[in-house]
Amino acid sequence: MLVLGGARSGKSRYAQERCEAVPGRLVYIATAQAFDSEMTERIARHRGERGARWSTIEAPLDLAGAIGEAAGQGDAILIDCLTLWLSNLLLAGTDMATARAGLIDGVAACPVPVISVANEVGFGIVPDNALARRFRDEAGWLNQDMAALCREVVLVAAGLPLTLKA
Amino acid sequence: MLVLGGARSGKSRYAQERCEAVPGRLVYIATAQAFDSEMTERIARHRGERGARWSTIEAPLDLAGAIGEAAGQGDAILIDCLTLWLSNLLLAGTDMATARAGLIDGVAACPVPVISVANEVGFGIVPDNALARRFRDEAGWLNQDMAALCREVVLVAAGLPLTLKA
Amino acid sequence: MLVLGGARSGKSRYAQERCEAVPGRLVYIATAQAFDSEMTERIARHRGERGARWSTIEAPLDLAGAIGEAAGQGDAILIDCLTLWLSNLLLAGTDMATARAGLIDGVAACPVPVISVANEVGFGIVPDNALARRFRDEAGWLNQDMAALCREVVLVAAGLPLTLKA
Repeated sequence: MLVLGGARSGKSRYAQERCEAVPGRLVYIATAQAFDSEMTERIARHRGERGARWSTIEAPLDLAGAIGEAAGQGDAILIDCLTLWLSNLLLAGTDMATARAGLIDGVAACPVPVISVANEVGFGIVPDNALARRFRDEAGWLNQDMAALCREVVLVAAGLPLTLKA
Repeated sequence: MLVLGGARSGKSRYAQERCEAVPGRLVYIATAQAFDSEMTERIARHRGERGARWSTIEAPLDLAGAIGEAAGQGDAILIDCLTLWLSNLLLAGTDMATARAGLIDGVAACPVPVISVANEVGFGIVPDNALARRFRDEAGWLNQDMAALCREVVLVAAGLPLTLKA
Repeated sequence: MLVLGGARSGKSRYAQERCEAVPGRLVYIATAQAFDSEMTERIARHRGERGARWSTIEAPLDLAGAIGEAAGQGDAILIDCLTLWLSNLLLAGTDMATARAGLIDGVAACPVPVISVANEVGFGIVPDNALARRFRDEAGWLNQDMAALCREVVLVAAGLPLTLKA
């Protein structure tokens, strides 16, 4: 399943609730890296909101590896979020097509349900700088590939889901 | 009811038409402040488009107070829009959590139907400056709280509504 | 038909597939102008992806004229995209209301099906500069006018359509 949404759209909470509908152990794969106090605060708040069924794997770059590891630990996996992961890869200078293919293969091969959260970032004015444009392009392509793979895709706005694929 | 939409999406016109389906007197609560000629022109154009059933209350900051006042004057209330109100509060240095709670209480307690218009601003690239990021966060949280309260929520694009909650 | 979508949303591919469901000859009206290598590359890639049934008309400015010409050459017309055309007009200093009315008349009079692609650009933070704000306003107004004219309107995200009008 793929949960798309804007900033502060409630997409993470929605995805978490969907994941918690699966009985058993749950694995949260966090792609966030805390570079400043804004992010540190946000990560701590989100972690505090999850319950005892959850364990956490941090995977700012090797997301496919983390999915393999998580598949042995839990009955469902939540990846939050693909767009931060993309951003980490771009800053690290990784080849994007290879990374995208690796992620798609990892999700396709995963024996337990995977719910991925991603930002929809393409509904604004064309950004001024080339890196932001490239990021927007990569995010759009990744969302398209993931949406093609997933059985269910929703777009969340104001905490409420619109069904894109079911 | 909550009417979400992008810039120039037709959200205000859609909300106004929905409000005009209610018989009787209608109150328009305007949160806009005219700081420049762009805004002055826009406010005047919108006011000119409304008919004789409408009265107007200007409420750039005390929106909960305006809702109480409007409830005594009309059979339905249109708030246009929550996002400008948020922007006014941020510039005035108001405590946002208190203001948001006050608005939610005011809408919940209102004896006549309230239709609120708000911008969806989270579907673009992360803004460069911290104030814009904070504004985007606050707008998202307010939209989530209002959507949870309202019986009907739509997302308007190109003048057409997508139902998020009904 | 109007196909709205964000950047890299798969809107052009979706519109092309819809157009290819029409038997016979197809005309692609390209509004893009290649100012830099980013755009040249993108145009060439898109052209290479279209098959033998397609012919192409380039129309960076005179879109109504191109629709008239295309109507004599094909059984269906794809315009990709209205938002680049708007951008070209703004840079050329064209009167926007006249151009918009001319386009609407051209589409309304066209004897074969027209599928138009347009960007939804209004779901982000208010842009810093006045030209970007004006562009966003014009894009929103054009999308509203086209949506009112068209029989079918969809919003594409991650390659998947949400029906706005059917």
